[in-house]
Amino acid sequence: MKYYAKPLNRLIGELSKLPGIGGKTAQRLAFYILSLEDQEVEKLTGAITEAKAKMRYCSICGNLTDEDPCRICTDHSRDKSVICVVESPKDVAAMEKIREYKGLYHVLHGAISPMEGIGPEDINLKSLIKRLQGNDDVKEIILATNPNIEGEATAMYIARLINPSGIKVTRIAHGIPVGGDLEYTDEITLLKAMEGRKPLG
Amino acid sequence: MKYYAKPLNRLIGELSKLPGIGGKTAQRLAFYILSLEDQEVEKLTGAITEAKAKMRYCSICGNLTDEDPCRICTDHSRDKSVICVVESPKDVAAMEKIREYKGLYHVLHGAISPMEGIGPEDINLKSLIKRLQGNDDVKEIILATNPNIEGEATAMYIARLINPSGIKVTRIAHGIPVGGDLEYTDEITLLKAMEGRKPLG
Repeated sequence: MKYYAKPLNRLIGELSKLPGIGGKTAQRLAFYILSLEDQEVEKLTGAITEAKAKMRYCSICGNLTDEDPCRICTDHSRDKSVICVVESPKDVAAMEKIREYKGLYHVLHGAISPMEGIGPEDINLKSLIKRLQGNDDVKEIILATNPNIEGEATAMYIARLINPSGIKVTRIAHGIPVGGDLEYTDEITLLKAMEGRKPLG
Repeated sequence: MKYYAKPLNRLIGELSKLPGIGGKTAQRLAFYILSLEDQEVEKLTGAITEAKAKMRYCSICGNLTDEDPCRICTDHSRDKSVICVVESPKDVAAMEKIREYKGLYHVLHGAISPMEGIGPEDINLKSLIKRLQGNDDVKEIILATNPNIEGEATAMYIARLINPSGIKVTRIAHGIPVGGDLEYTDEITLLKAMEGRKPLG
């Protein structure tokens, strides 16, 4: 890509670092950006800078938020007796889309994966246990980790950890195709999966 | 996408305005950007801002450049007797990649398209005629507009405009792409390839 002037090359280089953006796409995006009004470009860079500056993890549930604690954790209309445990903030968004679940969340930011050297201490799990200690409100933990090997292992691990406390632990049903991704599951399947949840352990 | 906090939503919204970037991809890119180090994010926004601020069109050839006139127009080692006319700066880059052409360029920024209401006065053509007036250096104009209806019409129009001046006007050859398959070549290309046949050996 040395056939363009430096600033354009630099822009193409930066854009092609983004996931799923190859050289040709980066070039197309760069030309598009150059064709925009200054104001539009400022909107784009402003949005990047603002999101990066303001977004943080909720100190309670670990979800991405611009306020700590996040809006879900501080929403008094939500059911504080249920916590849905998911792997990523994208899964919270997927779950919120079904407009059925009114409880709280806990975001693990990953799943236990011995293959990749990710143990229970490497995910946001300790804070879940802490959340449950001395908290009599919580009656059920729904394990909504992805239905793949890592997600199942993580669910199993958490179930064994929490079961002795007497809190009901459920796993979302295999309405979701095994090997699939929570994020890309259609809403109805996700709803069925929530309805079909069963006690674990 | 109202399931995320505002700054993240805004970022996803801005990213999904980019061409070829849908909602899911924008979401993936936004999460990726949030996962980056501050320094990396600054590199990205800096590259966008810098490119937008510094890149302009060369006042001679119309190519994208950070210096006016551009490096190709001011390069004394280049052959000033040939001008290759292309539709876009991307075509200049494509042409430069073959490392064979050593002449100058003229970028039209489009092609004549009566269907879309784009006439000769809407593309960067006047400046080409001006460039040729009182310029005895130029001996050949290579028309390298795209081999589609608009590109052909544009080439035809320019050829008729320049021919009276006595400057040689050529059109890049049409034919089967190297590595292509005769079987899968469309009929018009095949016809052009037959018409453009040359003695061998």
